Amino acid sequence: MRIYGDSISGNCLKVKWTADFLGRSYEWIETDILKGESRTEAFLAMNPAGQVPAVILDDGRPLAQSNAIILHLAEGSALIPPDAYDRAKMLEWLFWEQYSHEPYIAVARFQVRYLGKPVRDLEPRIVERGKAALQRLEDGLAASPFLVGGAVTLADVALVAYTRWAHEGGFDLAGYPRVRAWIARVEQALRIAD
Amino acid sequence: MRIYGDSISGNCLKVKWTADFLGRSYEWIETDILKGESRTEAFLAMNPAGQVPAVILDDGRPLAQSNAIILHLAEGSALIPPDAYDRAKMLEWLFWEQYSHEPYIAVARFQVRYLGKPVRDLEPRIVERGKAALQRLEDGLAASPFLVGGAVTLADVALVAYTRWAHEGGFDLAGYPRVRAWIARVEQALRIAD
Repeated sequence: MRIYGDSISGNCLKVKWTADFLGRSYEWIETDILKGESRTEAFLAMNPAGQVPAVILDDGRPLAQSNAIILHLAEGSALIPPDAYDRAKMLEWLFWEQYSHEPYIAVARFQVRYLGKPVRDLEPRIVERGKAALQRLEDGLAASPFLVGGAVTLADVALVAYTRWAHEGGFDLAGYPRVRAWIARVEQALRIAD
Repeated sequence: MRIYGDSISGNCLKVKWTADFLGRSYEWIETDILKGESRTEAFLAMNPAGQVPAVILDDGRPLAQSNAIILHLAEGSALIPPDAYDRAKMLEWLFWEQYSHEPYIAVARFQVRYLGKPVRDLEPRIVERGKAALQRLEDGLAASPFLVGGAVTLADVALVAYTRWAHEGGFDLAGYPRVRAWIARVEQALRIAD
């Protein structure tokens, strides 16, 4: 498998962490989004959406969208709960992540860290919705150590990716103690070094 | 099963269409988002994200996120391809829909039709990305009658929901002939009346 990814992108690291956790071998092809490397003709032929991550599977076929890729890689593994309802709750977190978390937590970080925007100049809407997403995670961790029950699943992989970098976008995690403890727990379970 | 949904929301109709297609019985509980009915205390206890659709399954447990709900309902049915790669491509479309299609095509329609904003006053970014999403669909339909191969899948259910209403947000589908033919094909396959 070849993984086209940018190391500054949490979406790309999800794929790396999942492959590492599962012991899958791959070639990582660093693709610099700030230099437009996901918009070249060659890249668009592989992923017409022009986004990283994208992978070329061992049989040569392409696949895109971080959460679709990790779901495909992890099929039949411990990262996907065997119970149908737990699996559905995991999917609920995965779709929520892309719609209600990434567009605020990841976008704020990108604007502050990579585009140099001062935190005070972030759109208020992004800050408010980012905080709401962090609170939703804090509440979601009230009853269990991981987002879906007692063991790490793809929901944790997907949500931890940008949450652990939330401070780089100006979000203070001090008010979210369960989230902070969960980040450490997921990093340990996935054996993520920084 | 109880489905809490707003009939003006394509995300909610996805759940209705899937349940109807599968012959599942349910009670539809109309939930008016414009009147704040997804933000009441009782609703938030069921879905802390405060979004429709949300369902209460037959065993009393809640589930949210339109695409997670339809994946759960359709498990083991013809709406999910049996082949692992086809399934992954279907998931790729589902995540792309929530990240790169709904925030433009559905949001433009909501602002124009329900908030009364003139089409010319839409944010240019929303219009540009909406057009890019329609073009991506047009290209994706070059090789097959449905988004993933020869039969209707959840990818078509999810993508048709707002694409068939794109004109209500000011998008002209005349330039996307494959998309138009596909909408008619999916409506027929799902037996959707308007």
